[in-house]
Amino acid sequence: MILIINGPNLNLLGKREPDIYGHESLKDLENLCQNWAKEYNNKAISKQSNHEGEILDWLHTAESEGFSGIVINPAAYGHSSIALRDAIAGINLPVIEVHISNIHAREEFRWHSYISAVCMATIAGLGFLGYKAAIEKLANN
Amino acid sequence: MILIINGPNLNLLGKREPDIYGHESLKDLENLCQNWAKEYNNKAISKQSNHEGEILDWLHTAESEGFSGIVINPAAYGHSSIALRDAIAGINLPVIEVHISNIHAREEFRWHSYISAVCMATIAGLGFLGYKAAIEKLANN
Amino acid sequence: MILIINGPNLNLLGKREPDIYGHESLKDLENLCQNWAKEYNNKAISKQSNHEGEILDWLHTAESEGFSGIVINPAAYGHSSIALRDAIAGINLPVIEVHISNIHAREEFRWHSYISAVCMATIAGLGFLGYKAAIEKLANN
Amino acid sequence: MILIINGPNLNLLGKREPDIYGHESLKDLENLCQNWAKEYNNKAISKQSNHEGEILDWLHTAESEGFSGIVINPAAYGHSSIALRDAIAGINLPVIEVHISNIHAREEFRWHSYISAVCMATIAGLGFLGYKAAIEKLANN
Amino acid sequence: MILIINGPNLNLLGKREPDIYGHESLKDLENLCQNWAKEYNNKAISKQSNHEGEILDWLHTAESEGFSGIVINPAAYGHSSIALRDAIAGINLPVIEVHISNIHAREEFRWHSYISAVCMATIAGLGFLGYKAAIEKLANN
Amino acid sequence: MILIINGPNLNLLGKREPDIYGHESLKDLENLCQNWAKEYNNKAISKQSNHEGEILDWLHTAESEGFSGIVINPAAYGHSSIALRDAIAGINLPVIEVHISNIHAREEFRWHSYISAVCMATIAGLGFLGYKAAIEKLANN
Amino acid sequence: MILIINGPNLNLLGKREPDIYGHESLKDLENLCQNWAKEYNNKAISKQSNHEGEILDWLHTAESEGFSGIVINPAAYGHSSIALRDAIAGINLPVIEVHISNIHAREEFRWHSYISAVCMATIAGLGFLGYKAAIEKLANN
Amino acid sequence: MILIINGPNLNLLGKREPDIYGHESLKDLENLCQNWAKEYNNKAISKQSNHEGEILDWLHTAESEGFSGIVINPAAYGHSSIALRDAIAGINLPVIEVHISNIHAREEFRWHSYISAVCMATIAGLGFLGYKAAIEKLANN
Amino acid sequence: MILIINGPNLNLLGKREPDIYGHESLKDLENLCQNWAKEYNNKAISKQSNHEGEILDWLHTAESEGFSGIVINPAAYGHSSIALRDAIAGINLPVIEVHISNIHAREEFRWHSYISAVCMATIAGLGFLGYKAAIEKLANN
Amino acid sequence: MILIINGPNLNLLGKREPDIYGHESLKDLENLCQNWAKEYNNKAISKQSNHEGEILDWLHTAESEGFSGIVINPAAYGHSSIALRDAIAGINLPVIEVHISNIHAREEFRWHSYISAVCMATIAGLGFLGYKAAIEKLANN
Amino acid sequence: MILIINGPNLNLLGKREPDIYGHESLKDLENLCQNWAKEYNNKAISKQSNHEGEILDWLHTAESEGFSGIVINPAAYGHSSIALRDAIAGINLPVIEVHISNIHAREEFRWHSYISAVCMATIAGLGFLGYKAAIEKLANN
Amino acid sequence: MILIINGPNLNLLGKREPDIYGHESLKDLENLCQNWAKEYNNKAISKQSNHEGEILDWLHTAESEGFSGIVINPAAYGHSSIALRDAIAGINLPVIEVHISNIHAREEFRWHSYISAVCMATIAGLGFLGYKAAIEKLANN
Repeated sequence: MILIINGPNLNLLGKREPDIYGHESLKDLENLCQNWAKEYNNKAISKQSNHEGEILDWLHTAESEGFSGIVINPAAYGHSSIALRDAIAGINLPVIEVHISNIHAREEFRWHSYISAVCMATIAGLGFLGYKAAIEKLANN
Repeated sequence: MILIINGPNLNLLGKREPDIYGHESLKDLENLCQNWAKEYNNKAISKQSNHEGEILDWLHTAESEGFSGIVINPAAYGHSSIALRDAIAGINLPVIEVHISNIHAREEFRWHSYISAVCMATIAGLGFLGYKAAIEKLANN
Repeated sequence: MILIINGPNLNLLGKREPDIYGHESLKDLENLCQNWAKEYNNKAISKQSNHEGEILDWLHTAESEGFSGIVINPAAYGHSSIALRDAIAGINLPVIEVHISNIHAREEFRWHSYISAVCMATIAGLGFLGYKAAIEKLANN
Repeated sequence: MILIINGPNLNLLGKREPDIYGHESLKDLENLCQNWAKEYNNKAISKQSNHEGEILDWLHTAESEGFSGIVINPAAYGHSSIALRDAIAGINLPVIEVHISNIHAREEFRWHSYISAVCMATIAGLGFLGYKAAIEKLANN
Repeated sequence: MILIINGPNLNLLGKREPDIYGHESLKDLENLCQNWAKEYNNKAISKQSNHEGEILDWLHTAESEGFSGIVINPAAYGHSSIALRDAIAGINLPVIEVHISNIHAREEFRWHSYISAVCMATIAGLGFLGYKAAIEKLANN
Repeated sequence: MILIINGPNLNLLGKREPDIYGHESLKDLENLCQNWAKEYNNKAISKQSNHEGEILDWLHTAESEGFSGIVINPAAYGHSSIALRDAIAGINLPVIEVHISNIHAREEFRWHSYISAVCMATIAGLGFLGYKAAIEKLANN
Repeated sequence: MILIINGPNLNLLGKREPDIYGHESLKDLENLCQNWAKEYNNKAISKQSNHEGEILDWLHTAESEGFSGIVINPAAYGHSSIALRDAIAGINLPVIEVHISNIHAREEFRWHSYISAVCMATIAGLGFLGYKAAIEKLANN
Repeated sequence: MILIINGPNLNLLGKREPDIYGHESLKDLENLCQNWAKEYNNKAISKQSNHEGEILDWLHTAESEGFSGIVINPAAYGHSSIALRDAIAGINLPVIEVHISNIHAREEFRWHSYISAVCMATIAGLGFLGYKAAIEKLANN
Repeated sequence: MILIINGPNLNLLGKREPDIYGHESLKDLENLCQNWAKEYNNKAISKQSNHEGEILDWLHTAESEGFSGIVINPAAYGHSSIALRDAIAGINLPVIEVHISNIHAREEFRWHSYISAVCMATIAGLGFLGYKAAIEKLANN
Repeated sequence: MILIINGPNLNLLGKREPDIYGHESLKDLENLCQNWAKEYNNKAISKQSNHEGEILDWLHTAESEGFSGIVINPAAYGHSSIALRDAIAGINLPVIEVHISNIHAREEFRWHSYISAVCMATIAGLGFLGYKAAIEKLANN
Repeated sequence: MILIINGPNLNLLGKREPDIYGHESLKDLENLCQNWAKEYNNKAISKQSNHEGEILDWLHTAESEGFSGIVINPAAYGHSSIALRDAIAGINLPVIEVHISNIHAREEFRWHSYISAVCMATIAGLGFLGYKAAIEKLANN
Repeated sequence: MILIINGPNLNLLGKREPDIYGHESLKDLENLCQNWAKEYNNKAISKQSNHEGEILDWLHTAESEGFSGIVINPAAYGHSSIALRDAIAGINLPVIEVHISNIHAREEFRWHSYISAVCMATIAGLGFLGYKAAIEKLANN
């Protein structure tokens, strides 16, 4: 069972800056993840929060709730949250970082992510397909 | 209708470092904003939170709740929160940043604000009058 | 009596980069300032110069000429002139810095102003209304 | 009465990276603090949160709740939260910063803490004994 | 038809630092790419070179040779070659950057890639599966 | 008609550091420019000033005085004057920057010029021939 | 006899980013150079390569092949190749650097060229006329 | 037996900047250390020197002289001496760094200490109690 | 005959920030310089300007007007004016830089002066005596 | 058997900047290396290239060709080539870096070499004797 | 009574780099200082040391030995010794920093001195006359 | 006669971090140097000190004591001592810098040595053989 965590402002998907993030909603994305997980004989559960502390709580309890891997789109928190890095480093599950847009083609402060170094992999710019690739990797791990 | 958002620690107004922030309380400020808005035939609703995620939530729902503009004093979050920047960039309402004190005459890490670049304007050092100028601008927009 | 100083290139107002600075001329701005000052039972006198030294001279003699406060749009000199900073720090009048556009949303070398730290307040992005807010603050000081 | 605040991810104590943080749990630490406070004829109350805003709230209300000093292990928030710094600077209680591990022997982004400059003292690398030294200092203040 | 370009030192795959790059050879990788392309009803042709100039030549002629997209693992040249960036920006084919290892968990000079900003997407740390995700994206483009 | 502006200290040409700037005087240079303009069926008028503000004034009025292009050797002001940059960006005439010596082979603070980005072209190290190339370009524009 | 060296990606001239580099081809440029050299009673031979090493080889043998000067458009290699700098410093021929576009108005990593300091002159933004000015200078040297 | 090393200028304790360092003398401090060591059934010997080389010598011979741990207040040498770092790394005894004042609330060049990374722990701002905490830790080691 | 040049804002001497610059006026200083020059059988002529260009003009003509050396207090222009540096480097007279206050004990942007490197000597913090020492040196040169 | 690789521009030895590199040719150096290797009962084979990719190829095949160690003078590529670093890190032979001149007494961009960290040793400024010391070390390894 | 302290390597005066430091010896300088002090009805005692610790000792005991001011040429220690800064800040005597050569016209690492900010004044480039100016200032203090 | 100077902490050789510095003692190294010097018909005298000032004294008197060259392992002082650099620059003997380990493969603050630029050559990572190469060079000088 794979946990999909979407971070701050991703509840705006489809509405916020559609030239960057596309026109599909968060709900659409969560459905896609569910289907992709099935393709690999696995299951995906999606959560979204704008609260850094809430995301930390989810990471801490993921293992005991039966998840075997985590896909996280940290959004802006990836660029500023050392607490998120510590949480990922402190748990035993493999985590893959996904960004929908190509963060390297945007402002310089988006080029560095604190969590990349403690994740198994990082994907940016594949759009929603980035989640699919992450799910496949975790399902095959 | 204009939303006034006051960020972290501003609930301490009147108590915290009064030589910098003055002796009037948050309640005093909120009343003033209400009156100023009336002067421009508008209405001001004030909220305060120490929680970054809660402020993000308020920004996301402001438009659907009928607000036509936002005055935000991000306090310390202005210097560190890229998520706040993304939220402001992701909504369609004009936002004006206000700081009570002159942040440029304080520590160097207060000179840069992540949200200035996505706000319509930024005001620092006018004391409470900064809110008035912001309300006037939004009311005339 | 309030002195309004407009710095280098502001004589081009209305002609220079109108998408940034608008279509109204310097003359229009000066008239507005005169009217706003009257609203607060005060008087505004406007000067403009492209010469750094001339602006220093004006600052030095402002108090003896009967001014009680100064609104300055330093334009480009705000980003490079330490002499301007010293002049403002060396006189006893309150000074407020105004920028018509939001300098924080432009090139990085426009984010820092040497004079912000010695001014009472700094306003950017309110358009001509920035002058009004500054005049009100000085009139009420 | 002394308030002990443990920041993000410290609920994982004993489970997270035990080679760095040891095998004892947060509960063990809280009991030790209680006992040490008693040795100095004082009382210690412990709280833990992964939510930055919640920690700010606790700091704001500590004095009115009767605490005379605060021991805080800010964990990752020490490296990124200016809001935490402002909260500590804005209250009248003495605060001591404690880190269990020697943060100076870890990644460079852990060498600087925003709150050190507004705390009375900072201790790193003494393990749980750091809390004891902090409690003794506050009890003797 | 998709062009797979593997950059400098990747001919050592399976021999060089196997704890980072795994035990499979470049030949193995090229076969996998061929199979994955078939899954998406496409065709993959692989080339490898240690010569920066040769890679530039391949990029220039890819379109006229009938390729519809390019997967490139620039290896070390990604961190230093502006010429590679210019070549990618100068052609009309979509390009996806792939790194086998998680470059963000390695030396700091590997965190930045000159080509990321001109590629459609960038993937790091998925191992060989990164090539699969890139091929899928290009096949569906 | 082309305006040739020579900036600070260039009145010393022929006297100042002749190993860098040669032995010919400013007068010699101005005559050469006049002749070169004739070759391209145009006319060149030369001005020199050590006063930043005066150079700004000349730029502002050039168009209304009938000039169709400007060659400017900003000398030291190129490295420090943002006001010069704003003036050039604010007028509608094409401007070409010329430096007599190769500024890139001198002190590091001479490598960057604020005006290069808003000029049509920049030439350094061609000696007086740099003016000729600039005049030719403007005459053919 | 003057050697014209065009560096990486310039074989794409007319095809690559035409808004920056224009619509004329490399062949067109080479013909123009030939004609301009004739105007100054000289001869121009043009070469182009995407291979850094090949360009080094050409520089080394230029003098013995009878060339009296070199015009080089290093393209991206100017920003990264210290070897190119060493080659130019190590030969006895005068070299002039030419860039078609105004590199100072583009990304910051294009502002510095390693070879400028060892060239006689550098020209950027004159379009193809930059080659003409360089040829004239070398022919008159 | 624990060695207490006090570095440069600490012989001025009680005389130098008493608002920072207090009014008690070095002799007072050394007596306190002796007493604290006794509390933990250990013995403390104190040395002070303004000579970097002499401190290195003491560190080298500490183990053979029977010491089981070292408390060092490196004073200014902590911020500049890599030799001190090497000496501590080169011996087998545990070392704890103590600063009387909160160095993080002073000039920026005092925020980093070269020896922190090779010490077991570091304490700043506890006043003389910092030595007590260090002695307790070493006695219990 | 020695030229004494006082730069921007020094006409405020005695009025501006008297805790830094003392209570004596520019006139007092000029009289002192005249007397000191006489002591060394020389003559001192003083000038002051807030205009950078005017100071450049004075430097250019000093030699032909019969001066044998220059004492300059560049004030703020020392920190920002490369044109001033070029003017000093371009004339043949020895120049000594004097600052009344100790600029190294003030804000960091006052620590570097562009002209120091091209002056014979630099003096800061001696108050008016700095002018005396400079005059003596030039008189004895 | 020891492989001696000389990088870009070293074919100019004896001709290029002889005050830095001496008057002896590459051929002379290669003969000396052959003789020194014999002294240590070993054999030295020398290669030179201006092509980065060719040097990578040689490093990759050195072991299978029977070499037991490599002496490399990377010349300018040492300062810019991460690919060279990766190649050296990816092979199993010991490599020693040699520079003829003292690169630390030259321009700052020559002080850092990407390959030093993955070589066994680095030698600069010993002239040709640097090769001898490297050969001796490898022969005795 | 004034203490003259000459720091490391100044015992080489007259021998070391005479083009920078002149041909007179340390003995000559000390005699001059003695005479200059007499001119101002004072007395000068000179000491020199290459040992940082010894200079610290001298500074500590200067007041109790009856000195009323100190002239120090810290030589290289000025650029690296925070301990020297602390010693000067920790004593009650006025201290003036003197450098014989103009350190601002030398390598960049000589431009900053840690002690300037805690000295009364700093003089560089006046040669031995710098000591005279410092002695006069202290004698008149 | 050649002087061998070993700097701080090298008296710990064989005991300190043996995985970096090996198991042989300083005595062993000094004997080897003596023997190597004999091979080249020269003589080597070894000294070691942890005191920066003492090393300066040795450098100053080396020539008058009859030494014709110096081999120095500055250890940590190489990274921080400008005084050491000045001493080497101030004497007339050739000096060669030797580091036993490859300092470029260690912490970043070990990559730069202040003395490299004033030494004839620098060697790192050859182990004790570095001393041999240095002695050979000096004996053949």
